[in-house]
Amino acid sequence: MDKELRNAHASGYDALVIPGGVLNPDKLRTNKQALSFVRDFFVQQKPVGAICHGPQVLIDAEVVEGREMTSVAAIRKDLENAGARWDDKEVIVDAGLVTSRTPNDLPAFNAKLVEEIREGRHGEQHA
Amino acid sequence: MDKELRNAHASGYDALVIPGGVLNPDKLRTNKQALSFVRDFFVQQKPVGAICHGPQVLIDAEVVEGREMTSVAAIRKDLENAGARWDDKEVIVDAGLVTSRTPNDLPAFNAKLVEEIREGRHGEQHA
Repeated sequence: MDKELRNAHASGYDALVIPGGVLNPDKLRTNKQALSFVRDFFVQQKPVGAICHGPQVLIDAEVVEGREMTSVAAIRKDLENAGARWDDKEVIVDAGLVTSRTPNDLPAFNAKLVEEIREGRHGEQHA
Repeated sequence: MDKELRNAHASGYDALVIPGGVLNPDKLRTNKQALSFVRDFFVQQKPVGAICHGPQVLIDAEVVEGREMTSVAAIRKDLENAGARWDDKEVIVDAGLVTSRTPNDLPAFNAKLVEEIREGRHGEQHA
């Protein structure tokens, strides 16, 4: 269901996926409401997936420091400068944060994201 | 005159202008030959202009640390994380590096760039 950002809250969702492209993340990263929405998924320890240029949004949400991540190669330096540990893998999972490089990685990305959503994240106890 | 990057050297030019757009800088910043070409303008203390997303290339060329700069708002955080001091002005000149935010700033950008090319840069003595 589509919802305006001002009516959407992390508490109403199980996970967040931030797609790539050079235009969408570029716009989202300057939108304070979007950054707050994204940050809440980390605060509430819910799975977040980001692929290609999607991780740009995570830089402005200030949630990448100390994280193991990947992304499209063009923004590697930006992620490293923001404190992430970047690696060139088809998918990297770090405590519920799932990242991939390009559309070619989508099968691995989707599989890991589903796994994180099923298992919960951040070392939570699973019943 | 158009030239292939492998045949172009900073020594053959008086200045460099890196235009914006979300596609060009995104490609150039992963091209080692392009980054080396850009870096040489700084080594040779020649004027460099960068506008909109153009400064992304300067992040990967590793020449922004300690620099006063501006850019399109979306990459502000990336420049700050790379060590630049970012401000929201139509044009900023820092020792031959001329930066602006958007196409609206072009008159100010062009004027300052011409000034830098005429005057030399980096505190060089002018005859």
